[in-house]
Amino acid sequence: MAGKEDLKLLGLLVSPFVIRVRMALSTKGVSYEYVEQDLFNKSELLLKSNPVHKKVPVLIHNGKPLCESLVIVQYVDELFAGPSILPTDLYERATARFWAAFVDDKLCPAWFGIVMAKTEDERAEKVTETSAAIGQMEEAFAQCSKGKAFFGGDSIRYLDIVLGSFLFWFDAVRTMYGVEIISANKVPLLAAWAERFGESAEVKKVVPEVDVAVQYANKLLAAYAAAAAKRIGSD
Amino acid sequence: MAGKEDLKLLGLLVSPFVIRVRMALSTKGVSYEYVEQDLFNKSELLLKSNPVHKKVPVLIHNGKPLCESLVIVQYVDELFAGPSILPTDLYERATARFWAAFVDDKLCPAWFGIVMAKTEDERAEKVTETSAAIGQMEEAFAQCSKGKAFFGGDSIRYLDIVLGSFLFWFDAVRTMYGVEIISANKVPLLAAWAERFGESAEVKKVVPEVDVAVQYANKLLAAYAAAAAKRIGSD
Repeated sequence: MAGKEDLKLLGLLVSPFVIRVRMALSTKGVSYEYVEQDLFNKSELLLKSNPVHKKVPVLIHNGKPLCESLVIVQYVDELFAGPSILPTDLYERATARFWAAFVDDKLCPAWFGIVMAKTEDERAEKVTETSAAIGQMEEAFAQCSKGKAFFGGDSIRYLDIVLGSFLFWFDAVRTMYGVEIISANKVPLLAAWAERFGESAEVKKVVPEVDVAVQYANKLLAAYAAAAAKRIGSD
Repeated sequence: MAGKEDLKLLGLLVSPFVIRVRMALSTKGVSYEYVEQDLFNKSELLLKSNPVHKKVPVLIHNGKPLCESLVIVQYVDELFAGPSILPTDLYERATARFWAAFVDDKLCPAWFGIVMAKTEDERAEKVTETSAAIGQMEEAFAQCSKGKAFFGGDSIRYLDIVLGSFLFWFDAVRTMYGVEIISANKVPLLAAWAERFGESAEVKKVVPEVDVAVQYANKLLAAYAAAAAKRIGSD
């Protein structure tokens, strides 16, 4: 990349999806302006930049918006010099994309279901789903890491970023509901990986404290309850 | 790519996701062995090759399986010489990936909801969702095609393949329920694009007749009804 890059990231400190983009930019050593958003009162800039989903992250590069975390991470990887975030081997790259889609399609909704469940039965069901998905990620780790420290080998790379961005939320779920998502008994490889991931200085820079996630979850739950009460009131 | 490639595609004639992979391979001029699967009686090869989702398409390349249509299409694009399927401009590529995710996350479940709805109210709701998503794809077409014939410009490329693979199913929905998903009144650009897409010789080679889709939908509906009856019977 030649010339001066103008990079602005619309984010939310507790969003795993935003953390992915911050880690990708940090891997490439790229500096950017970070602009925290209030999702309870969305800014004009956010609504204009992501009219389809109205969500963070949005990376605005030289005035042009990019949305969806996995799309942005790949864009950052393809655009900037520095360590390759996705595997360079094409079969390994396809495998990493497969598991990234799995995290977003299966693991993420199951985890979010634990946070937002309305009943204990519903929560128990989501815990089972999450555990099943985590069990499959244990196999994915064995397949991708080939005995090394990270999904990406010796360093934190694509799948580390994709899954690792959720780890502090798994801690939050333990604090809130006593649910252990990554347990050393059941998924020893992932548990050891999670520890290594959390020790990284780059990770520490962008991942908030567990309490911040718990507070945000409580705010979200209160907002949902208020909206539900309003709907019942208007019936 | 040097040497002889061994490519086997596990597919289903009526699957839009399989059609995507066939069109990608055809764009690259690559030959492959096609093996039709029976999803009501899954083969050992399918279960072994895609143990996570147990779904088609699976592309087996020199003995190594690849799953998930968008992952496979990108792999084929990166591996083989020939016309580039994804845009080469990085911002356009990110935009194409964004809309491909939109098709799979928003449009596809809404369309499938029309096919499988249990009540007319549920179907009407899914028709509204599908129409909203198609309205956004009309804007995507204007953005990506820049006045040319296809999302990919002068030729059928990534987003044409991703969305176009559903068109015969939209015709099937019209036949089954009288629902017009792409109407020239509401989405004139997409309607004209759909016509051009359908006239392509490459498309005609891999897209089945509408009746085949209708028959498959009826088989699927019957299987779901039988499974539901069995569940009620066992209560």
